[in-house]
Amino acid sequence: MTDNKLITPKKLQGFWELMPKEQMLFSSLLEKIEKVFVENSFLPLDTPVLEYSETLLAKSGGDTDKEIYRFTKGSTDMCMRYDLTVPLARFVAMHKNELNFPFKRYQIGKVYRGERPQKGRFREFYQCDADIIGDGELSVVADAECVRLFEKCYNALDLDVTIEVSNRKILSGYIEEINKTDKTIDILIVLDKIEKLPMEEILHQLEEIGLDKNQRETIVSIIKTSGNIKEVSEKLKKISKNELFLSGLAELEQIDNLLSAMGGKKIIYNLAIIRGHNYYTGTVFESFLTGKRELGALGGGGRFENLCGYFSKDKMPGVGMSVGITRLFNLLMQENYFDLFQTNEIECAVINFDDTLLPSMRVVEQLRQSGVKADCFYENKSFKSKMKEANRRQVKFVIIVGENEVNTNMFTLKNMTTGEQATMLLSDIVETIKSDRMASLTLSNRN
Amino acid sequence: MTDNKLITPKKLQGFWELMPKEQMLFSSLLEKIEKVFVENSFLPLDTPVLEYSETLLAKSGGDTDKEIYRFTKGSTDMCMRYDLTVPLARFVAMHKNELNFPFKRYQIGKVYRGERPQKGRFREFYQCDADIIGDGELSVVADAECVRLFEKCYNALDLDVTIEVSNRKILSGYIEEINKTDKTIDILIVLDKIEKLPMEEILHQLEEIGLDKNQRETIVSIIKTSGNIKEVSEKLKKISKNELFLSGLAELEQIDNLLSAMGGKKIIYNLAIIRGHNYYTGTVFESFLTGKRELGALGGGGRFENLCGYFSKDKMPGVGMSVGITRLFNLLMQENYFDLFQTNEIECAVINFDDTLLPSMRVVEQLRQSGVKADCFYENKSFKSKMKEANRRQVKFVIIVGENEVNTNMFTLKNMTTGEQATMLLSDIVETIKSDRMASLTLSNRN
Repeated sequence: MTDNKLITPKKLQGFWELMPKEQMLFSSLLEKIEKVFVENSFLPLDTPVLEYSETLLAKSGGDTDKEIYRFTKGSTDMCMRYDLTVPLARFVAMHKNELNFPFKRYQIGKVYRGERPQKGRFREFYQCDADIIGDGELSVVADAECVRLFEKCYNALDLDVTIEVSNRKILSGYIEEINKTDKTIDILIVLDKIEKLPMEEILHQLEEIGLDKNQRETIVSIIKTSGNIKEVSEKLKKISKNELFLSGLAELEQIDNLLSAMGGKKIIYNLAIIRGHNYYTGTVFESFLTGKRELGALGGGGRFENLCGYFSKDKMPGVGMSVGITRLFNLLMQENYFDLFQTNEIECAVINFDDTLLPSMRVVEQLRQSGVKADCFYENKSFKSKMKEANRRQVKFVIIVGENEVNTNMFTLKNMTTGEQATMLLSDIVETIKSDRMASLTLSNRN
Repeated sequence: MTDNKLITPKKLQGFWELMPKEQMLFSSLLEKIEKVFVENSFLPLDTPVLEYSETLLAKSGGDTDKEIYRFTKGSTDMCMRYDLTVPLARFVAMHKNELNFPFKRYQIGKVYRGERPQKGRFREFYQCDADIIGDGELSVVADAECVRLFEKCYNALDLDVTIEVSNRKILSGYIEEINKTDKTIDILIVLDKIEKLPMEEILHQLEEIGLDKNQRETIVSIIKTSGNIKEVSEKLKKISKNELFLSGLAELEQIDNLLSAMGGKKIIYNLAIIRGHNYYTGTVFESFLTGKRELGALGGGGRFENLCGYFSKDKMPGVGMSVGITRLFNLLMQENYFDLFQTNEIECAVINFDDTLLPSMRVVEQLRQSGVKADCFYENKSFKSKMKEANRRQVKFVIIVGENEVNTNMFTLKNMTTGEQATMLLSDIVETIKSDRMASLTLSNRN
């Protein structure tokens, strides 16, 4: 092959790819979240990345269409999934008679949106979704379970997160009371900007939609309601007697009772949580790093009326949650949350000489079977350059396997951080490395 | 929405999707294999599913092209990956200066091949790949490490597998000796069919390629060499003195020594292992269920000369292994390897009454925090129908939470298999469920 035939290696623009050590960290986050899902009796699903376009486009419209990766192969018109919810709907509609309801499923997988590349947004990213789907009806207990599950995900990642919960029926009830249901979407679009625009601008836009002064002030007062359930409930009860409004509030109170029983801790109620315009109908919630609300929501979820409406006559209400793990990981990297140096694929490097390769590999194997991440620098290099390599790669321990060590079955263990070294049996080496590992863990938890 | 607008929910033809319980089993296989990779100091990589077509098609040709999912979006010509090796090559070529060599990476991910659907073949399937890449050169120790890693993957799955190893240099050396290097691919294509066609047909085809009687018999004799290293070595040493031939044999012997040191067990040498026609250049290996060779290879791997030839002038030799996990899983399902009934997302169902919902959810939470997979049947149904549901879903334990139980803090645990029931503290319930779990595990291992 000649040079001028070489292809420049490039990753697709807007796509996300981590270096191995960062990937180790990211994978460990996924693993922790998956563990939470499993412990809470959610079942795994792993739908194909591709679906028939007819299936995927059933629900979407407007902007989403342009973002979708859609193509034909042979006579098949297909798309890459842009979320994990439509594939869930397709799956549930197909297999309704084989599933137990409420059907609790989780899926952790990549989704695709060909949007304009921008900071913190990727064209391929992970979603960690868990949903509970009912057959015909679904108790509000499921909503509480989802909120609690959501909280547990962040706890598993050792993150101090506050979950803000609302119920869309409260706002919808008030809009119904003032006879503006035909303007619901317009109103929600304005209210969704309440944290971004000045209040006079919000009030002005509400006026343009046709809300009178009293209505404008009341709706803003609803949206600005937040606190513990008692505070929120007392304030809202004075505002409206609309049935839908009161049923939303009652659900909020019930969820609070359930969350207390289920050990929910960092949960507050905030009527400013809306989450989009048409999908959610009851409970809605979002998560924020405690004290860092300005960084934006880390994920969210809520109750929807009917999962499978496009595929089936059967009404299947559901409630779901989604951790935006790709965005969260990038945020945590940026906030220096991780100690990359603690992440090493090698805990102990075994240094061999030409004539001790086989016993060195035996040592590596014994260490691995004892749960120590050991590796041998077996490439044909000098002792000095192997020690340098161990240092450069920040390997904590080194074992030197010379002829003498092989004959006596005693090996020299060197702690590369402290410089200490001692000659001992392999079993003692394993103990030393494991104690050091425990000590480092304790230390890093204390910091 | 009216009925006639409903879309029939369908999964794309030829795509694979498991029901949740099967998915639990499949996920557990992936998890076990990933654990082996991590314990052996391989680093994770998670490249995008999409790549520039220029990148992915650099290497492929012929049939692969037709199978590839290729499309354009805007002005970008892209493909879904058809293996995990080309993305690895692209990654290594891009980041060579940031990586440590030998670079040990694993990737577990889906790949896409739009081939004609047929039994046991899917258009989207998982590969579990691990490779060791050298910079300029790579010791044969890496080959041994890969073979041993490959064996460990199957051990982790509790499968009795035999690994058959060969070295392509042996055959290439003999072909060189008889001056037929220009016919190498033709010869390999014929030899690859040695287990499928009658011997006279093989000999006839070799004759057509231009091998004389002695050459045909010798090459068949090489291919039919198998056994332990001593047997293989003794037989082959008599056949040729060609340098390449002897260096292949020497590598095989060295790998055997290394594998012994590294605890390799079920390894034999079989010169019939060829693995394709142009990619591998040295060590090659495949795995078979012991005693069920007729089911075909479960996976394989080998040594290649240069990973990044299409992207870089630097020579980067490598050795890799791949477990064909989608095919393996289907084979194991078909062979009734799994006990699906042992797989349950719920170990313990909590049965509440209308007035004990909150304490029931508290019990569920306490069980979950103690590591018991508990769930509450909170839908508003009768006691009888909840017990029936527990039975139908083969939940092993049921806890009944009535008013009396809540007042006394003592709960009734019922073992649904034996019918036994007893009233006890929650902490004792946890102990009972965990002991039963251990006992079942021991029992199932003994079978």
